[in-house]
Amino acid sequence: MIKLGPGAVIGILGGGQLGRMLAMAAAQLGYHTHIYCPDERNPAEQVTDRLSRHSYTDETALVNFAQKVDVVTYEFENIPVASVEILRKHVPVFPSAEVLRVSQDRLQEKEFLNGIGIDTAPYKAVATETEAKAALNVIGFPAVLKTRRFGYDGKGQAIVRLAEELPDAWAQLKSNEVIIEGFIPFDMEISVLAARGQDGEIRCFDPAENIHKNHILDLSIVPARIAPALRNTAVDIAKRIVAELDYVGILAVEFFVSSSAPVFRVNEIAPRVHNSGHWSIEACPTSQFEQHIRAICGLPLGDTSLYGRAEMKNLIGEDINDMDIYLKDPDANFHHYGKMEARPGRKMGHVTRLLPTVEPQ
Amino acid sequence: MIKLGPGAVIGILGGGQLGRMLAMAAAQLGYHTHIYCPDERNPAEQVTDRLSRHSYTDETALVNFAQKVDVVTYEFENIPVASVEILRKHVPVFPSAEVLRVSQDRLQEKEFLNGIGIDTAPYKAVATETEAKAALNVIGFPAVLKTRRFGYDGKGQAIVRLAEELPDAWAQLKSNEVIIEGFIPFDMEISVLAARGQDGEIRCFDPAENIHKNHILDLSIVPARIAPALRNTAVDIAKRIVAELDYVGILAVEFFVSSSAPVFRVNEIAPRVHNSGHWSIEACPTSQFEQHIRAICGLPLGDTSLYGRAEMKNLIGEDINDMDIYLKDPDANFHHYGKMEARPGRKMGHVTRLLPTVEPQ
Repeated sequence: MIKLGPGAVIGILGGGQLGRMLAMAAAQLGYHTHIYCPDERNPAEQVTDRLSRHSYTDETALVNFAQKVDVVTYEFENIPVASVEILRKHVPVFPSAEVLRVSQDRLQEKEFLNGIGIDTAPYKAVATETEAKAALNVIGFPAVLKTRRFGYDGKGQAIVRLAEELPDAWAQLKSNEVIIEGFIPFDMEISVLAARGQDGEIRCFDPAENIHKNHILDLSIVPARIAPALRNTAVDIAKRIVAELDYVGILAVEFFVSSSAPVFRVNEIAPRVHNSGHWSIEACPTSQFEQHIRAICGLPLGDTSLYGRAEMKNLIGEDINDMDIYLKDPDANFHHYGKMEARPGRKMGHVTRLLPTVEPQ
Repeated sequence: MIKLGPGAVIGILGGGQLGRMLAMAAAQLGYHTHIYCPDERNPAEQVTDRLSRHSYTDETALVNFAQKVDVVTYEFENIPVASVEILRKHVPVFPSAEVLRVSQDRLQEKEFLNGIGIDTAPYKAVATETEAKAALNVIGFPAVLKTRRFGYDGKGQAIVRLAEELPDAWAQLKSNEVIIEGFIPFDMEISVLAARGQDGEIRCFDPAENIHKNHILDLSIVPARIAPALRNTAVDIAKRIVAELDYVGILAVEFFVSSSAPVFRVNEIAPRVHNSGHWSIEACPTSQFEQHIRAICGLPLGDTSLYGRAEMKNLIGEDINDMDIYLKDPDANFHHYGKMEARPGRKMGHVTRLLPTVEPQ
């Protein structure tokens, strides 16, 4: 167990909006941050005093970075595991390389979850179109083909409704590491942000209900509109996952919720702060970002209770141009990520509304 | 009127905790910040991407800075007016040089306030010990000698209880620009943070009750424990001040509150965000820092209503070592300013507690 006090330097791999919000939470607690990110003009570098602009595979640069920081974390899970293996020879890295390996690979992820008795969609790993065809005969239609690695926001996925659609879908993925997942009918998607400290303490945020548009998160609502007993079950599953992984930091668990058993299936886990938890900045005493910093620095975890109902809306692409509407809305907390080009599909900011009362169930 | 959108660069004179919190508020709205500060290792440089480390009187550096930013503001009022005069030839500066001039000089400040019918302590400007002696005969004892300029946190002040104490007090101030103020018995100190936009819109935060220890703010409590009608009166006075000054940004007005008339006397005004408004980060939809950024960038002002009762405690010097106690307190929001040396009297951080209900009057 390491305990780092204010003045210590937190290294963050990745310079996107999650790195940016982590850096700001770290600053509030008195830490310095050092962003490691290959991208020019990344959002996080605007709020940090130290920056390394190098490739994630540049071993010399990684070692250099490791020697300048007291702990390393990351804002996205597509960091090469090999990079984390290099870093951890010099400095503690949270979450661990083992966790990263599991969560980078949809096959390992599902095997891990099923192995500890947590339901997922039925799946099968395949390497060729022929194997895929055979697997579809077992899993049935519709099904979803997903590359095992490096997918996000619907990228690296293709739905197959009929056998005839397989060749196109297969060609589109351009991969020989694919899993085929059964298509699960569900009533709701929710996520639980779970934090685990170095001492094993676990604290979860209230489950959020997530609504997607074009495969990108559009809206998160807390608390999720499910019965309190179900909320507890979802939180318990998230707790088991972080405990089993010996996890340190914030982990996001995405669930499909059905009215018939199994009520909860885990869609995926993300070893990082998560878009569906941004409401915690205003709606809780401790935000997901502060909680992550507390966990990796060995500080006590903070209170995660909800002040009230809240709603977080992503501002995608040109949505950001409605800024003035949100600034005039007394219930809206507006966040701009400092990205200049409002490209379609790009996460430009978000707005959190604190809503005064909890709706009756 | 200028309107700056995200991506614009806000220049901030001063790199202390106020500059730091301004920079973080600016970042949330998508602005870049450029800190201008002569000090090595200043708190604000940790959360900004651009920094000029030069003297406030370095004309070349000031012009250079002005050309790199879209608007300039400042985090403390002891910036030379001449520096602002140089800057404003190249870039808008808010608050204005005129406002800065008034608020830097206790004499001009009191003349301005009395001139618009707002009460202050009785006072007299003096240049010599002989003049001071004569003034004390009129004002009476006890009285406070204050240098006209560059005082803060009780510095540049001396209390004179008896005529015999004058020589020592006078020698201590080392100034020939002094005002003598009558000592006002008061029940409470409060402050009102008023914001005025470039379009003349004015919004005030709830009056805060301020409790000092060793001449340094110790505790701010909102709402101040005074009758609602009195709260309105204090807010109205603050509104008149910012309107009369044609002010842009946040201005802090400190009042002495007495049970006998005049109930309110203005102690001083500060043309900047203020220590007694830090609770607004968590207790209001818009913080004083965000409000200041909105005003100087020509954005609509934000909502300043209180979510509930709140209390802000300054962490001075070694108080900061109690960090873990505050981190474990579910009601406490802990802020560390990133200063390494916990010198006595130094503001190291603060803690805001949101308290659930408003106490009955």
